[in-house]
Amino acid sequence: MQAAYDALHALLGERFTTGASDRALHGQSESHFADMPPDGVAYPQTTAEVAALVSICAAHGLPVIGWGTGTSLEGHALAPHGGITVDFSRMNAVLQVSADDMLAVVQPGVTREALNTELRATGLFFPVDPGANASLGGMASTRASGTTAVRYGTMRSNVLALEVVLADGRIVRTGTRAPKSSTGYDLTGLFVGAEGTLGLITELTLRLQGQPDGISAAVCAFDDMDAATQTVIMTIQSGIPMARIEFIDATFVRIFNARHGTDMPEKPHLMVEFHGTPQGVREQAESFGNIVADMGGSAFQWAEQAQDRARLWSMRHNAYYAARAAWPDAYAITTDVCVPISKLAQAVRETADDIAASGIPGPILGHVGDGNFHVLLLPHRDDPAQMAKAAALAHAMADRALRLGGTVSGEHGIGMGKLRYMDREHGAGWDVMTSLKAALDPHGIMNPGKLLRQP
Amino acid sequence: MQAAYDALHALLGERFTTGASDRALHGQSESHFADMPPDGVAYPQTTAEVAALVSICAAHGLPVIGWGTGTSLEGHALAPHGGITVDFSRMNAVLQVSADDMLAVVQPGVTREALNTELRATGLFFPVDPGANASLGGMASTRASGTTAVRYGTMRSNVLALEVVLADGRIVRTGTRAPKSSTGYDLTGLFVGAEGTLGLITELTLRLQGQPDGISAAVCAFDDMDAATQTVIMTIQSGIPMARIEFIDATFVRIFNARHGTDMPEKPHLMVEFHGTPQGVREQAESFGNIVADMGGSAFQWAEQAQDRARLWSMRHNAYYAARAAWPDAYAITTDVCVPISKLAQAVRETADDIAASGIPGPILGHVGDGNFHVLLLPHRDDPAQMAKAAALAHAMADRALRLGGTVSGEHGIGMGKLRYMDREHGAGWDVMTSLKAALDPHGIMNPGKLLRQP
Repeated sequence: MQAAYDALHALLGERFTTGASDRALHGQSESHFADMPPDGVAYPQTTAEVAALVSICAAHGLPVIGWGTGTSLEGHALAPHGGITVDFSRMNAVLQVSADDMLAVVQPGVTREALNTELRATGLFFPVDPGANASLGGMASTRASGTTAVRYGTMRSNVLALEVVLADGRIVRTGTRAPKSSTGYDLTGLFVGAEGTLGLITELTLRLQGQPDGISAAVCAFDDMDAATQTVIMTIQSGIPMARIEFIDATFVRIFNARHGTDMPEKPHLMVEFHGTPQGVREQAESFGNIVADMGGSAFQWAEQAQDRARLWSMRHNAYYAARAAWPDAYAITTDVCVPISKLAQAVRETADDIAASGIPGPILGHVGDGNFHVLLLPHRDDPAQMAKAAALAHAMADRALRLGGTVSGEHGIGMGKLRYMDREHGAGWDVMTSLKAALDPHGIMNPGKLLRQP
Repeated sequence: MQAAYDALHALLGERFTTGASDRALHGQSESHFADMPPDGVAYPQTTAEVAALVSICAAHGLPVIGWGTGTSLEGHALAPHGGITVDFSRMNAVLQVSADDMLAVVQPGVTREALNTELRATGLFFPVDPGANASLGGMASTRASGTTAVRYGTMRSNVLALEVVLADGRIVRTGTRAPKSSTGYDLTGLFVGAEGTLGLITELTLRLQGQPDGISAAVCAFDDMDAATQTVIMTIQSGIPMARIEFIDATFVRIFNARHGTDMPEKPHLMVEFHGTPQGVREQAESFGNIVADMGGSAFQWAEQAQDRARLWSMRHNAYYAARAAWPDAYAITTDVCVPISKLAQAVRETADDIAASGIPGPILGHVGDGNFHVLLLPHRDDPAQMAKAAALAHAMADRALRLGGTVSGEHGIGMGKLRYMDREHGAGWDVMTSLKAALDPHGIMNPGKLLRQP
């Protein structure tokens, strides 16, 4: 081990450390996993350094774990087998913005907010918005999505090309700057969502979108959850090109009112946004408004100005932290299921019934236009019975998503948290993943303990 | 070999044949490749039969080649190493249409036109339109796209889930019916575009689109090619959601006028289609019209009625056959490059200059909204000097696409025809593809001779 550390020090100088505080920091996660620190932390500045450090780790059989901002929710960046965490915070340059080709080339440590700040003067933006100010390398690795995926797609459709360092230190470039290609296996698509188990992403070419001329956002209330979710189903089926359509339940509304001084009625709400031409946005809002009215929803409360919209979505994005703050003694279990749109109302209703019966706080929200929703389960941390019940609730949600033809994760990924469902969701497909992993990382050094069948 | 044939006969009865006419039929292609017939042809009716026949082939080391409608342009379905061609024409059932989830489940032999006929009453349609009435299994395997990809994406984004028979006879299901997922490697995306080299697709779950309330189509003429391609670049950069934006050069216009009795001016044209609400379509047409006028293009000639639009696109789809008929003594070489949109005008201009200098007929058209265009090179078949020049022109196009940051195939694929460019386009990425291939098909029985580095 010391030989590996010596080689890493020789390569990176002070940018490789085995110090306790760096290790501790990179052994934590935002979710409910125990701390699992790595043996050392590297802060590379170039792809060549990443390739060299992976080669050193490969030579010594040391695990390699990528680290963006640490906002993953399924323990993706923990080090259950030790090894070296590669922190990309010093590879945070926007390398190129091509307004003509509507794309940006970035290093993996750039966060989505930093990129959008950089793009402000161009009239373009990067649409994928998981809430957290995550790094783009991390977002690609977990196939992140969030509030705008209903309109602009997930990371899968917004990453055009990648540079990746493989487990043996080889540097591979996937994709081109052309909008499409039919030249062999879609390696870009393979590395997006691979959670760092096939290689480390060292550069991304991202599709950008033009800022729409017209944007408007609104909230509306419903007397019950079913009316809200049925409204979503009808809206998606009618093809209205919603830019955002988010569900929040009455509990989240209560939390928001208390925390942010809003005065929304304590009922289930939809938070929506329309993008298009000014006239197009009016048409969309009118079509959506007709469905809302048919379902007994309230009139829209509009967020007229840009800062009103920013406040609205900031409130939504901070929902997780707001709920945790509202139950300071609770342990937080984040769930993330995604069902076919026709099953959304049933899935939410049955989930809400289970939560009500359990007596455990479990506010619900979701990117419901994709059939994707989350419950934040908040059992009291010192109550083993509540903890067991919460685990059972989370399990029932995953089980229900699979029964309804859906998936156990819409956007958070597998990491260490959802390995138990992979066999049921994928069957022989999980074996195929394991074969692909063995082909590209035969010694299993890339982010071990995650996503794949464990040896 | 006889043992394998006996087993296949026992499995499929008369639906397995080694007869000369079936073999000959499956040894031809629509492009310029020599005939390469298989040793036998199988016509399975179920996934179980496909799995059993692949297992028999695996046991005897026999190549397995998938066959849809035989419309591939790069020799994908030829049998350069013999083996068994699996003709999916008897697996042509639309298994399910879910209007609620806007998806269809189909067998691989269903053609895109058959699916759209089946969908007519639902108000939904399947948008991917490569021109040929190809099978959906084949379209997935070559990652087909075509005229509507600029709006609706390629097969990559329109296939939600697959059932695949692997080289060892295992049956794997990929994806779910939920609109998105973050549960491991994107196997669906890996099999789409794999050209049958990783397995045989036996079932597809496809995303459907709602028929837009408003559709309008038009053509407009430009004095020169550059004005037309610059119009495309500006249109795409301005974010007008074109449903189709196709370029045809003056030569194709002359061919169309002669063959179809149209009276378009013999100049470069754009053929366009708008989808949306009636008001939205008007807005789009107006925005596009402003760009056309700025670039000196003509007023639109509208295709008002559905049958006018059908005639327009049928003319476009038959361009390949029309050009071949116009030069009956020519050998036809179809090219297919795709460049970043900002490089479109340069790529088309330089290509046109090369063709003019060569003296060989080479009409140009393309799905230019994606940066994708084709030249149909038509050297006289008995003129070796023209044949050599045509090959050099095709090579120069591929070379230019790579230099401009693009790809050697936008939609036709690699097959046998473009192997020579894989190293330059992908470098180490091609080795990665070869590793993945070896992992899933260690004995190399799935469609050998295509896409991958050849042993």
